[in-house]
Amino acid sequence: MNAFMVNGIERPLDLLNQSKGKEVIVYLKGDRQFVGTLLAFDMHINVALDNAKEMQNGEVKKNFGLTFLRGDTIIFISPASTSSGK
Amino acid sequence: MNAFMVNGIERPLDLLNQSKGKEVIVYLKGDRQFVGTLLAFDMHINVALDNAKEMQNGEVKKNFGLTFLRGDTIIFISPASTSSGK
Amino acid sequence: MNAFMVNGIERPLDLLNQSKGKEVIVYLKGDRQFVGTLLAFDMHINVALDNAKEMQNGEVKKNFGLTFLRGDTIIFISPASTSSGK
Amino acid sequence: MNAFMVNGIERPLDLLNQSKGKEVIVYLKGDRQFVGTLLAFDMHINVALDNAKEMQNGEVKKNFGLTFLRGDTIIFISPASTSSGK
Amino acid sequence: MNAFMVNGIERPLDLLNQSKGKEVIVYLKGDRQFVGTLLAFDMHINVALDNAKEMQNGEVKKNFGLTFLRGDTIIFISPASTSSGK
Amino acid sequence: MNAFMVNGIERPLDLLNQSKGKEVIVYLKGDRQFVGTLLAFDMHINVALDNAKEMQNGEVKKNFGLTFLRGDTIIFISPASTSSGK
Amino acid sequence: MNAFMVNGIERPLDLLNQSKGKEVIVYLKGDRQFVGTLLAFDMHINVALDNAKEMQNGEVKKNFGLTFLRGDTIIFISPASTSSGK
Repeated sequence: MNAFMVNGIERPLDLLNQSKGKEVIVYLKGDRQFVGTLLAFDMHINVALDNAKEMQNGEVKKNFGLTFLRGDTIIFISPASTSSGK
Repeated sequence: MNAFMVNGIERPLDLLNQSKGKEVIVYLKGDRQFVGTLLAFDMHINVALDNAKEMQNGEVKKNFGLTFLRGDTIIFISPASTSSGK
Repeated sequence: MNAFMVNGIERPLDLLNQSKGKEVIVYLKGDRQFVGTLLAFDMHINVALDNAKEMQNGEVKKNFGLTFLRGDTIIFISPASTSSGK
Repeated sequence: MNAFMVNGIERPLDLLNQSKGKEVIVYLKGDRQFVGTLLAFDMHINVALDNAKEMQNGEVKKNFGLTFLRGDTIIFISPASTSSGK
Repeated sequence: MNAFMVNGIERPLDLLNQSKGKEVIVYLKGDRQFVGTLLAFDMHINVALDNAKEMQNGEVKKNFGLTFLRGDTIIFISPASTSSGK
Repeated sequence: MNAFMVNGIERPLDLLNQSKGKEVIVYLKGDRQFVGTLLAFDMHINVALDNAKEMQNGEVKKNFGLTFLRGDTIIFISPASTSSGK
Repeated sequence: MNAFMVNGIERPLDLLNQSKGKEVIVYLKGDRQFVGTLLAFDMHINVALDNAKEMQNGEVKKNFGLTFLRGDTIIFISPASTSSGK
C-alpha cells in the first residue's frame, strides 16, 4: 500500500476536493498570496474562497471576504493544515 | 452543514452570479484595479461593469462608466460588501 | 428591477453590441490606448475600429483610420460617452 | 445608415479581407512594426505579406520580401491608406 | 534494444506514471522549486505532491505538506532518485 | 490580376509551403534568429529546419544542423531569397 | 529529389521521431538548456529525456537523470549529432 493510496488522491483535483471547506493557501503569479476557506473550484482551477485574506510577508494585507480567483493566475494551492512552516 | 453549503456556492461562477447587480472589486494583471457594478460575466470571465472606476492607491483615477473587461486579464474579483479592509 | 435589467446587458458581449457605431476607448496590454468608432467585434474580442487614433497622455499620437485589433491584446473597452474623466 | 454599414464591415475579419492586395501596417508585440502588401490571413490572424519591410522610427530597417507573421504576435493591423499620421 | 525500450517509457507521461509514490523535483516558472512525493498528475500536468517542500539554494524554504501545482506553471519534473548532482 | 494572385498565396500557410526546400529566416521571441532550409511545418507553425544556424548580428553564432522549432515561439518566417537587406 | 525527401522529414514531428534514442539539445524559455537522450515526446511537445543534464555556458550544471519537460516551455530541440558548433 503506497502513499497515494493512503491519501485517496488519484487525480490532482482530488486534493482540491478534499480541501473544500478547509483553509487553503493560494499562490498567484506576480507574488500574490491568499489564505481563505476553499468553497469551490472547477476544471480551469478557478477558485472561490470565503474569508479571503491577501497576505504579504506573513501578515494580512487586506481582507476580501468572498473572492473569485481566476485559475490562469494560480501557481499552487495547499491546505493550510498540512503546512508546517520551515 | 459546512461553509460552502451556507454560501450556496458549489461552483466558482456561483460566486459571480450572486454578485450580479452588486459592487465588485476587480484586479487585473499589471496592477490595475476597477470598482463597479457587476452587470454580466461569461465562462471566459469576460465581465461587464457599470459605473466602472479605475482605482489607484484607494483613490478614483478615472471614471469609465460602462466597461467591458476581457477575462484573460483578470486576476480576481471580490464583491465589495464582503471586503473589510485590513 | 435591478441595474443590469435597466441596461439590457445580460452577457458581457451585449455591452459591446450596444457600443457598435459609437466611439469607444480600447486599452491594450503594454499601455497602448486607442479611441475610435466600434465597427465590429467577434467572440475572440477581435475588434474593428474606424477613425482609430492611438492616444498617449490624453493626446492623439497617431491617426490609423481603419484598424483591426487582435482580441488577445485587449484589456478593456469602454464606450467614450459613459466615461466622465475623474 | 450608420458608420459600419457604410464600411461594409460586419465582422472584424471583413476589415482584413478588404485590405487584401493593399499596403498594411502591422504592429507586433515587442515593438516591431512591418509595412507590406497583405496577401493573405487566416482565422488565427496569421498573415502573409509581400514586400514586407521592418520599420523603426519611420525608417526601413530591413527588407524581408515575402513574410509569414504568426497571428499570436500581432497587436493590430491597419491599411496604410487610411492612416494619416498625426 | 534501445534506451527507451529499457526504460519502458513510450510517452512522456509514462515517466510521470513511473514516478508516482516517489520523490520528485519540480521546477516552476519564476525560479520556484519543489521537492515532494508525486501522488497524482493529469494530462494538463497538474500535479499533486505530498510532503511538498519549497526549496531555495538547496535548502528547505517552507514545508507545504499536500500541494496542488498547476501544470501551466511547471517547467520540468524529475524523479529525485535519478538525479546525481553535478 | 492583383498581387496575391501573382504569388499564388491565398492562405498564409501557402507562403510556407512554397518555401519548403529553400533557405528561410526565422525570428523567435527573445530576439533569437535562425537561418536554415525549411523541411517541414505544421498548423501549429512547428518547423523543422536543416542546416540550421543561429544568427547574431548577422554572424553565425552556432550550427545546429537539424532543428525542431516550436511554433509558439516563432514571430515571423521569411524566405531568404526574397530578403534584400536594407 | 529535394532536401526534405532526402531527410524523410515531411512533418516537423518526424524530426523528433528520428531523434528517439539519440542525444538531443533542448532549449527552454528563460535560457535553460538540457542535453539528454530523447526517450519520448507527444503532440504537445512534452518530452521525456534520459541522462538529462542541465547545461550552462557549455558546462554541466546539474545531472537530473530521467526528466519530464513540459512542451510549453520548449523553444527548440536539435539532435546533438547534427550540431557542429560554430
